[in-house]
Amino acid sequence: MPLFMDVHRLDDSVTIDDVAKAHMADLQHQDKYDVKYLRYWVDEAGGTIFCLAEAPSSDAAATVHREAHGLVAQDIFEVKEGS
Amino acid sequence: MPLFMDVHRLDDSVTIDDVAKAHMADLQHQDKYDVKYLRYWVDEAGGTIFCLAEAPSSDAAATVHREAHGLVAQDIFEVKEGS
Repeated sequence: MPLFMDVHRLDDSVTIDDVAKAHMADLQHQDKYDVKYLRYWVDEAGGTIFCLAEAPSSDAAATVHREAHGLVAQDIFEVKEGS
Repeated sequence: MPLFMDVHRLDDSVTIDDVAKAHMADLQHQDKYDVKYLRYWVDEAGGTIFCLAEAPSSDAAATVHREAHGLVAQDIFEVKEGS
């Protein structure tokens, strides 16, 4: 399954608690699109959020965000993971 | 230890094999700055790379990249991780 990293740039700061709530909503909407939001990273002060997801397409990943909470990422990248 | 996500935007495509070599160089230079590069994600076609690292500061994380291979990220964000 392709892997995607998306980047949200908010206009304001954000708390990780608020992002956690949005992520929970993602988890509740993702199954019907065969998407799996795996992990996310939040720059609280700067309002930047990175979400890592397995998805059949970038559109499918974005659709989950749109339906779950309406906060669609500004950018999405198909990635390979290394460590 | 603070956690950082950096973003490299290259002018050209990149292979994950080339990024793996740069990452190996990071691992060889990171100990003296108390930095730990943990994982990375590569958009090969678009030439975008995300690196996740524990580091005492963003400067320390950037210094490891600079000394290891010279490819310093365009942006670096202090982040908290959620899943």
